Amino acid sequence: MPPAPRPGSIPRDIAAVADYEPFARRCLDDNAWAYLAGGAADEHTLRWNRAAFDAIRLQGSVLADVSGGHTRLTLFGHDYAHPVFLAPVAHQRLFHPDGELATAQAAEAMDAAMLVSTLASTRLEDIARVGRAPLWFQLYVQPDRGFTRTLVERAEAAGYRALVVTVDAPVWGLRNREQRAGFQLPPGVEPVNLRGMSMPGTPQLAPGQSMVFDGLMAHAPTWRDIEALRGLTRLPLILKGICSARDAQQAARLGIDGVIVSNHGGRTLDTLPASIDALPVIADAVGPSLPLLLDGGIRRGSDIVKALALGARAVLIGRPYLHGLATAGALGAAHVIKLLREELEVTMALCGCARLQDIDRRILFTPLPGRTSEPEKR
Amino acid sequence: MPPAPRPGSIPRDIAAVADYEPFARRCLDDNAWAYLAGGAADEHTLRWNRAAFDAIRLQGSVLADVSGGHTRLTLFGHDYAHPVFLAPVAHQRLFHPDGELATAQAAEAMDAAMLVSTLASTRLEDIARVGRAPLWFQLYVQPDRGFTRTLVERAEAAGYRALVVTVDAPVWGLRNREQRAGFQLPPGVEPVNLRGMSMPGTPQLAPGQSMVFDGLMAHAPTWRDIEALRGLTRLPLILKGICSARDAQQAARLGIDGVIVSNHGGRTLDTLPASIDALPVIADAVGPSLPLLLDGGIRRGSDIVKALALGARAVLIGRPYLHGLATAGALGAAHVIKLLREELEVTMALCGCARLQDIDRRILFTPLPGRTSEPEKR
Amino acid sequence: MPPAPRPGSIPRDIAAVADYEPFARRCLDDNAWAYLAGGAADEHTLRWNRAAFDAIRLQGSVLADVSGGHTRLTLFGHDYAHPVFLAPVAHQRLFHPDGELATAQAAEAMDAAMLVSTLASTRLEDIARVGRAPLWFQLYVQPDRGFTRTLVERAEAAGYRALVVTVDAPVWGLRNREQRAGFQLPPGVEPVNLRGMSMPGTPQLAPGQSMVFDGLMAHAPTWRDIEALRGLTRLPLILKGICSARDAQQAARLGIDGVIVSNHGGRTLDTLPASIDALPVIADAVGPSLPLLLDGGIRRGSDIVKALALGARAVLIGRPYLHGLATAGALGAAHVIKLLREELEVTMALCGCARLQDIDRRILFTPLPGRTSEPEKR
Amino acid sequence: MPPAPRPGSIPRDIAAVADYEPFARRCLDDNAWAYLAGGAADEHTLRWNRAAFDAIRLQGSVLADVSGGHTRLTLFGHDYAHPVFLAPVAHQRLFHPDGELATAQAAEAMDAAMLVSTLASTRLEDIARVGRAPLWFQLYVQPDRGFTRTLVERAEAAGYRALVVTVDAPVWGLRNREQRAGFQLPPGVEPVNLRGMSMPGTPQLAPGQSMVFDGLMAHAPTWRDIEALRGLTRLPLILKGICSARDAQQAARLGIDGVIVSNHGGRTLDTLPASIDALPVIADAVGPSLPLLLDGGIRRGSDIVKALALGARAVLIGRPYLHGLATAGALGAAHVIKLLREELEVTMALCGCARLQDIDRRILFTPLPGRTSEPEKR
Repeated sequence: MPPAPRPGSIPRDIAAVADYEPFARRCLDDNAWAYLAGGAADEHTLRWNRAAFDAIRLQGSVLADVSGGHTRLTLFGHDYAHPVFLAPVAHQRLFHPDGELATAQAAEAMDAAMLVSTLASTRLEDIARVGRAPLWFQLYVQPDRGFTRTLVERAEAAGYRALVVTVDAPVWGLRNREQRAGFQLPPGVEPVNLRGMSMPGTPQLAPGQSMVFDGLMAHAPTWRDIEALRGLTRLPLILKGICSARDAQQAARLGIDGVIVSNHGGRTLDTLPASIDALPVIADAVGPSLPLLLDGGIRRGSDIVKALALGARAVLIGRPYLHGLATAGALGAAHVIKLLREELEVTMALCGCARLQDIDRRILFTPLPGRTSEPEKR
Repeated sequence: MPPAPRPGSIPRDIAAVADYEPFARRCLDDNAWAYLAGGAADEHTLRWNRAAFDAIRLQGSVLADVSGGHTRLTLFGHDYAHPVFLAPVAHQRLFHPDGELATAQAAEAMDAAMLVSTLASTRLEDIARVGRAPLWFQLYVQPDRGFTRTLVERAEAAGYRALVVTVDAPVWGLRNREQRAGFQLPPGVEPVNLRGMSMPGTPQLAPGQSMVFDGLMAHAPTWRDIEALRGLTRLPLILKGICSARDAQQAARLGIDGVIVSNHGGRTLDTLPASIDALPVIADAVGPSLPLLLDGGIRRGSDIVKALALGARAVLIGRPYLHGLATAGALGAAHVIKLLREELEVTMALCGCARLQDIDRRILFTPLPGRTSEPEKR
Repeated sequence: MPPAPRPGSIPRDIAAVADYEPFARRCLDDNAWAYLAGGAADEHTLRWNRAAFDAIRLQGSVLADVSGGHTRLTLFGHDYAHPVFLAPVAHQRLFHPDGELATAQAAEAMDAAMLVSTLASTRLEDIARVGRAPLWFQLYVQPDRGFTRTLVERAEAAGYRALVVTVDAPVWGLRNREQRAGFQLPPGVEPVNLRGMSMPGTPQLAPGQSMVFDGLMAHAPTWRDIEALRGLTRLPLILKGICSARDAQQAARLGIDGVIVSNHGGRTLDTLPASIDALPVIADAVGPSLPLLLDGGIRRGSDIVKALALGARAVLIGRPYLHGLATAGALGAAHVIKLLREELEVTMALCGCARLQDIDRRILFTPLPGRTSEPEKR
Repeated sequence: MPPAPRPGSIPRDIAAVADYEPFARRCLDDNAWAYLAGGAADEHTLRWNRAAFDAIRLQGSVLADVSGGHTRLTLFGHDYAHPVFLAPVAHQRLFHPDGELATAQAAEAMDAAMLVSTLASTRLEDIARVGRAPLWFQLYVQPDRGFTRTLVERAEAAGYRALVVTVDAPVWGLRNREQRAGFQLPPGVEPVNLRGMSMPGTPQLAPGQSMVFDGLMAHAPTWRDIEALRGLTRLPLILKGICSARDAQQAARLGIDGVIVSNHGGRTLDTLPASIDALPVIADAVGPSLPLLLDGGIRRGSDIVKALALGARAVLIGRPYLHGLATAGALGAAHVIKLLREELEVTMALCGCARLQDIDRRILFTPLPGRTSEPEKR
């Protein structure tokens, strides 16, 4: 493990985003680390999210004129400086005393969009007030549907630009690492946006009934809730947590504005595919009219290029900016975004792409038939 | 290795079924461990049984309404609360003084069906008397065919619901791990159900004759024995230990009621395929009219879902419940079943399946052509 | 490393052929070990020879009647008790003082055929005199073609049943492991069958000429030599060291009696395919009329069954019997053959094969399309 | 790590080219080693360059008459004794005080062609003067296009036979290993051929402009520069650093004389394919009329044969000769070339190829359909 970093400064040895991880481990206790680093069950999907990116080959393109290139994009009617968005992560005060406020500062400094979690440890209105970073609100549909509506109205009122409904976590995943660590929220960290919400009591199950089916899932959101939300808000409505082409097609049929292809960072159902493996399957199924974003496994600018080549308009990063946050607060989180954006630009230049739209599957390497389609793993 | 568990209590660190394995190792001597943990020869099949499950990807399904879902099934005319059956394992008093009686208690407590081995260290009648768990009887056809008939009659008389004939172990597999450990049954553990049976003497081989072909295999069961058993009992007749589509088709032709796809836990012929790899080949060959069960490698609720998606009606678990038994007796074995059932329900919910019948190959992820069909191994 | 074995006795822990390897390492010095264990260059082919076998899956077959089965075969007009032949290995007194004589005793005791190397450290006539094991003579075509003829005549006179010409080693392979160890024959070990042969002097190369092409290869055997040998002897003429379908087809065209598919135990050209991978390609190219034998990588009876399923009539073992020889002399070599034969019979029984002719590709497992064709490696 | 070698002598343990690497590590400080050994980002491509060669299988060919064979070739109107060319590597005085002069001596001694880098630490005229090795000049197009022209004229005047324009490094790759090591040129090592060149000042970026697109790439060479060079020199014009078939086709359209398939030794864009994987794709796209060379990963004579089989006319080696140079100066570099040439000849002989033109895809092994197309990795 590296030495503890000097508070609020970037450690000298950081050359890439992944270099922050050991520093973050150094800065966090076992409880917070189990929450941040862990995935569901045996953590296959968690590992695959990374390994799948490494196995995708670029073929580069030389001698193109990319002077004057840029990374700008327009999404759901707004302009963004680059396609690196901050994924919604709960309880960020677990990782740094400034929590979501520091993240918002980093996002503003680096012109990044930030997705704010329903389970943020800071009030969504306070986050909106801290700066001018573009904000989207991530919604967990609550058992109390009325309170859920209130959350949407609060996000709209606070100027959030889009509503992202997480649909892949109706029950808590089998977070064995957290269970083994006895994870719990420490004093002072709580989901403040849910204050005042009425919680359903422990369900009274009849003999033979199931805690999962008759208890936890009884209040879980369904497509009917999505239709209701569709009628409730004028914000762009985006579903997060889809790995299946069928689900994405259903979203398209219901007029959803966008889909974030995600396996919840490997935290819900283990052995879901790497999100980058699910992306092109979904992209082929829904076509270009439904904007897709990719969440999970991004650690390199080249990963962003690969995601865009396979059908994403933008990507979400999660653990990387929290590693920066844990290590050096807002400065660390901002540095992570900066590193990724620089790597993105270098990769675009080496692939002959001056604009994000120039990135398509032609920049990926296709081997000769009869050779393996993917290189050996490390 | 973990500390010894407190007798009869569940160790604090258990979050998943596999967590029991190191505790079981701690509780057993080398002799019993070699028998429980070992496989045939180089133990490739033993490892593949697990690895093959890990490489199968689910794609999940979101926003389905699964409230009121359940795990019930009907098989061979009986109802079962869930598809987790206890595989027939010999000599269970090797693993805990209460042996099969504790297993039967666990089965009853968790509404699980239990398959009782011909080589149980407890009389099959005593097991039937201890509780109300649904019982099937596993039969090894003995050289003494008359005694074999007696075993079937005893099982019928004791209320066993089905007869499972193990067909893949006519000769002892090359259990090199057991040989190296010098495995032998300790005093007090014996196959009590075979008491009184006449054993064939050591065969007198002519020069050039083979101990295998002319000795051991001379009394091995053949399809003719299966036909004879078919005429002998009204119980559902199930063959256990088939990995080949041809054998399963032959079973169907003979009117066998069901097949358990199994490689004997990797204990007979090394480099047989993982049973989960053999399952869909067999399912495609015999069609839906012959019920299949899957034995081998189940460690997660998601494994059960995968097995059902690939053609099984139910699954057998073996080593996992014995790890629980060795660690904490009936309580441990019951806990193992409980963990798997809960994981099964969570996985079903995250795959949008309210009932076992909803589980089919559509919940499995199919990658884009040109990407590898299976993810990298750990 | 294990303790030194008691001279002339089988160590207690041997349960399988591979168990002899560490004992052999213990009994040999670094010089002999480098020669025995090493392969060419980076030893990829050496490892692949083994790994390829492990990756081939059997599917077994149950309930067949195999009583009275056997392992006998007829090859080139002679009967053999089983298909485990001893590969020609040079300099066997490197591994045990009794060298080839001990090997011949083991072969006789276990009814195995033995291939005697041109480079044996014992006179071919002395080997023929020691017992009644069936013998084949392995011929390296010498620069002195007259002496080569004499060798053939000596083998014929001594009663050898077949002539095996090794064709894959016209130049010494890049035996880097031997080079690093500074391998040399110790005093008292020499290729006695070549005594009296005239050696060509060091070639005088003109500027720009190549030691390989103009020196070493100038005397290398070509197809013309094979045709000459064909006219010279009435013994069955077999070529050893072919991995390419084209070469095997050429052999068939010239009326060669048999081909041993072999990469010289990974000792000549690194990254040749595993011999078991080359076998079916060659079998498909030449059809059943040209008998094929398989050499390289056999460590299990199941490997023999796989080789026969993929087109071989018999197999050669090399390092395994030398591990036995180094550990326990003739007794150890005989035990190795015995273990393999027993495993062969058990595997045949579990695959429903009563005779070698019953073994064909149908006993191999074919996965569902879309699943990987080979399982993960250890 | 091995002991330090005796200055100017070949260590005793060297049996193959790769054996020089640990000695080179021993002789270099961390700064020089980071530069020599490192690749871009996570160094996937760096590893794949090697692993891809190891996974390609030869099938050999026996009994061909290859006496009188040779390794000569004609390329761009000149004859070469063998196809092992020395890749252009900058700053060679980092590795040995004699730097490029020692390399040129080794090239001359071993009849090898040497590509001299724009960033050589020795004047290109001095290198040309030191001996008679065939020289090609590697050109980095400089922001100062006039100075670039001067470099070309100097190379022509000094008798360089060809002009190789490196096109894959318009921006510095993400050399994280160098960054972590704080790599910098030590005193006394500088790109002397660029002395007197005017450097563009730090670009003044407007808000929202990008250092990559508006700064670094503003002066990067494009296809227009290549066309200008085409008109500027009569030397054969070769592009180095192409992994994409489209780029190679464009080069062919512009009348470029040759292409070096290369990923810059894994030093520019990580997850580019192994160059040997890119080669056949490009060869199939451009056909035989555009000569291809292969750069990256060569460590064995068999690698050279594989590259030629897949479409290359010659290969470049980089790190291997620098390992020799660092270990034993000109003698070490020469020894590396000698080892590779000897291995090349042995491999040709064992593949039945008397001349380079005899090497084609038929010497590669093609497995049976249904078996994996590549063997397991070490």
